[in-house]
Amino acid sequence: MERHVKFSARGRVLRVDSLSLKLDEFDRIFVVGAGKAGASMTAALERILGRQNLSGGLVNVKYGHSRPAPKRIHLQECGHPLPDQCGLDGAREMEILLRELNARDLVFVLISGGASALLPAPAPPLTLADKQQATDLLLRAGADIFELNAVRKHLSALKGGQLAALAYPATVVSLLLSDVIGDPLNVIGSGPTAPDSSTFEEALRVLAKYELSKRVPAAVFARLEQGAEGRLPETPKPGDAIFSNVTNFVIGSNRLALDAAAQAARSLGYRTLILSSTMQGETREVARVHAEILREIVSLGRPLKRPACLLSGGETTVTVRGKGKGGRNQEFALAAAISLRGMSDVVVLSAGTDGTDGPTDAAGAIADSGTVARAAKLGLSSADHLANNDAYPFFEALGDLVKTGSTGTNVMDLHILLAG
Amino acid sequence: MERHVKFSARGRVLRVDSLSLKLDEFDRIFVVGAGKAGASMTAALERILGRQNLSGGLVNVKYGHSRPAPKRIHLQECGHPLPDQCGLDGAREMEILLRELNARDLVFVLISGGASALLPAPAPPLTLADKQQATDLLLRAGADIFELNAVRKHLSALKGGQLAALAYPATVVSLLLSDVIGDPLNVIGSGPTAPDSSTFEEALRVLAKYELSKRVPAAVFARLEQGAEGRLPETPKPGDAIFSNVTNFVIGSNRLALDAAAQAARSLGYRTLILSSTMQGETREVARVHAEILREIVSLGRPLKRPACLLSGGETTVTVRGKGKGGRNQEFALAAAISLRGMSDVVVLSAGTDGTDGPTDAAGAIADSGTVARAAKLGLSSADHLANNDAYPFFEALGDLVKTGSTGTNVMDLHILLAG
Repeated sequence: MERHVKFSARGRVLRVDSLSLKLDEFDRIFVVGAGKAGASMTAALERILGRQNLSGGLVNVKYGHSRPAPKRIHLQECGHPLPDQCGLDGAREMEILLRELNARDLVFVLISGGASALLPAPAPPLTLADKQQATDLLLRAGADIFELNAVRKHLSALKGGQLAALAYPATVVSLLLSDVIGDPLNVIGSGPTAPDSSTFEEALRVLAKYELSKRVPAAVFARLEQGAEGRLPETPKPGDAIFSNVTNFVIGSNRLALDAAAQAARSLGYRTLILSSTMQGETREVARVHAEILREIVSLGRPLKRPACLLSGGETTVTVRGKGKGGRNQEFALAAAISLRGMSDVVVLSAGTDGTDGPTDAAGAIADSGTVARAAKLGLSSADHLANNDAYPFFEALGDLVKTGSTGTNVMDLHILLAG
Repeated sequence: MERHVKFSARGRVLRVDSLSLKLDEFDRIFVVGAGKAGASMTAALERILGRQNLSGGLVNVKYGHSRPAPKRIHLQECGHPLPDQCGLDGAREMEILLRELNARDLVFVLISGGASALLPAPAPPLTLADKQQATDLLLRAGADIFELNAVRKHLSALKGGQLAALAYPATVVSLLLSDVIGDPLNVIGSGPTAPDSSTFEEALRVLAKYELSKRVPAAVFARLEQGAEGRLPETPKPGDAIFSNVTNFVIGSNRLALDAAAQAARSLGYRTLILSSTMQGETREVARVHAEILREIVSLGRPLKRPACLLSGGETTVTVRGKGKGGRNQEFALAAAISLRGMSDVVVLSAGTDGTDGPTDAAGAIADSGTVARAAKLGLSSADHLANNDAYPFFEALGDLVKTGSTGTNVMDLHILLAG
C-alpha cells in the first residue's frame, strides 16, 4: 500500500507513485472495474490518459451513478446493495475482455465502494442465488469477516485475485478507493487483484464449523469439495507469478482524507493531531473519548496547544435502542455536544465522506459547546434525542446538519474537533 | 489549581509552589483533614516541617489506615464508605480546634480520597441519619452531582468552604489529593476549603424538582428553608474575604501521575503522548479507541513514531452484564488485548492508582498482542471472559495481573500503551 499516490501522464509516461509505465510499450489500454465512484474514476482516468489512448472497457456502477459519462468506457448500471442480472452481465463481459488480453496490453482496474455487490461473478455452475444463500447462512451463523471471505472468494470467478489472474499476462494497475478499515487490499471490493491466502480447504472447514455443510446449496458444497480435492484451480496466492504484473494503489482512503483535512487545518493556523484512521466502536462512547481529549487541550494545553485541530476517521457503530432518525455521524456530534458543554471555543464535525449518514439526506452534523443550551431553548433535550437515536431532528431544528449531497465516493467517516 | 507543586521548608520559610510562608510569623501550626491517605500525608508534612514546629491537630482516616503513625497529630480512625460516630467525633474535634484559631495561626488541611465520608459534619440539629436519608433519596431520584452537592453542602457544618470559614482569620493551606475527574476544588472532599457557589435556595429547588420536599426528614427541609429565608449563614461564596487567607493546592492528581509516567517513559527513550486525564465512558469502548490510536502508531507512525508511549487517565465505567470477577482496569486490558491482536511489539497496562481494581486484590492487568493466543492455549476465550465481565481469572491464569497492594492514595486510573 502506498502512502501518497501521485498520478500523471506526461510525455507518454504514466506515473503512479513510484510506478512508471511507458504508454508506447502497450498496444492497448483497457479499463474494467466496479463501484459507486466508477463514473468519476473513469472520467478522471480518461482525462489523465487522454481518451484517444483508451481501447475500451466497462465499469459496473450503481443505478443512477453513471454521470459524468465517459466516452470510451461503457458504464454498466446495476443493482446495489443486492446484486442483479445487470451486474452479472457486466462481470461476464469483463471476464471475456480480460481473457483475451496479451502481454502488450495494460488494464486499469477501478474499484470503489460497493464493488463487491456490483461485481457479482459466481463461478459456474453456481448461480447468484446459490452464493447469496451461502453468504446469508454464514452471516446468520455468526461467521467473522475472514471466514466469510474465505468462502465467498472460493465461490467467485473474479474475487480473491482471480480478476488479475484472468488478465495475465497483461499489466494490471488497480486503483482502489478504500471504504474498509485499515485499507486491506484483499478485502477492498473482495480483493479482485490482490493475493488470497485462504483456501478451498479452509472454506470447507468454515462450513463445517457452523454446521452448514449440508445446509448450503448442494452446488456450493460440491464446488468447495472439488476445489479441496485439487480438481479446481486455487485462488492466486501471495508470491504467485501473475502478481509480478500487478500493482495495487489505494488512491483514496480515510487516511488520505485525514491527511488532506489536517493539511487544510494547518494552513488555517491550527496545530493538528490525527488520532487514528481506523476508529471503531460504539459511536457515543468514541465521541466521548474524543471530547475528553479535547477537554485536555482546552484545560491543559495538551496533547496540543490551541488553536488545535483533532482528527480521526473510520467507521463507528450505533447500537440502535431508540426509534428516532439519524446516522452514526449525527449521533457522534450529538454525544460530543453533551460532553462539550462548558468548554469554550470548541466545535466538532462528524460526517460521512459519501455524503450519506444513515437513512438520512445529511452527511453528518456540527456541534459546539452551546449546542445543548440552544437546543434546550427550542424545547429539545439532547439526552432524550441521544437515548432515542434521534439526532436528525435535533440538528435539523438547530440548522446544524451538514448536507453535501452524494459525493460519489466513500472513504468512511471523518471526525474533526477544533479548539480555537 | 497549580500545575506542579513543590513543597519545601528551608531556613524556616515554607514554600508551596508560588506561596511562601515565613514560619516565624506564626505562633502555632495545626493540621486537620480527612482521607484514606491521611497517615502518609501527615507523616510527610511532619517530615518537611519538622515535628517540633507542629502544635497539634487531627486527621480522620479509614479504619486500619493509621500507619505510618505521626507523632504530634492524632489520627482518628473511622468509618468508610459509611460514615460513623468516630468520624463525627473527629469532625467535631476539628470544629472546636478551628474556632479557636487566630490570625497568627497556620493550619494545614489534608484532603485525600474518601474525605467526604470520613469527615461527616451534619449541621446541628441534623443527625447523620437525616443527611444520609436526604442523600439516598436524591441519588435514587436521579439527581446529578451538582444538585446533590448543592443540598449536601447546605446540610453540613464543614463542607462547601465552611471549614475554611471556621479557621478564619488563621492562614489556611489546603493540600489535596484529587480522586475526582478534572480536579475541581469544590468537589474534592466536598470542597471544605473551596468557595461554594450554590445556595440554600438552590438546594430547596432541587428537593422540589425531585418532589422530595416532603419526603426528606423534616429537620432537613426546615434547615434549608431557614437558610433560604436568610436566617442561617450561607456557605462562603467565591470572592468572600475569608478566602484571602486560604490557598488550595492539588498536590496529587491523575494529571500529575500522567506527567510522571510520561517523564519515566521519555527517560526510557519513548516518544510520549498524553491523551487525556479525564478519560471517561464505557471501559471496553474506551479501550478500543486507545487500541486504534496505537494501531495508527504501529501501521503509520502517527500520531507518534515508535518507540511510542500513549497515556491517558481518568475513571471509566463498566456496565456489568456478566457474573464474572474483575475490575474496570482488568476489563480495559482485556478489551485492548482483543484489539491488539496482530500488532507487533505492543503492550498495554491499565491499573488503578489505589492498588485496588473492583472487588479484587489486583490493581489492574497487562496485555499484549499475544495475550489472546496465549489464553486460547490455556482454553480461555477472551471474548467469553469479556462478555462475562470476567477479566480477573483470565489474567490470573496468564500471570498478567498487576498486584501492588493498597497504595494508600487514589488519583484514579492510568492507561499506558507502548509500541516498542
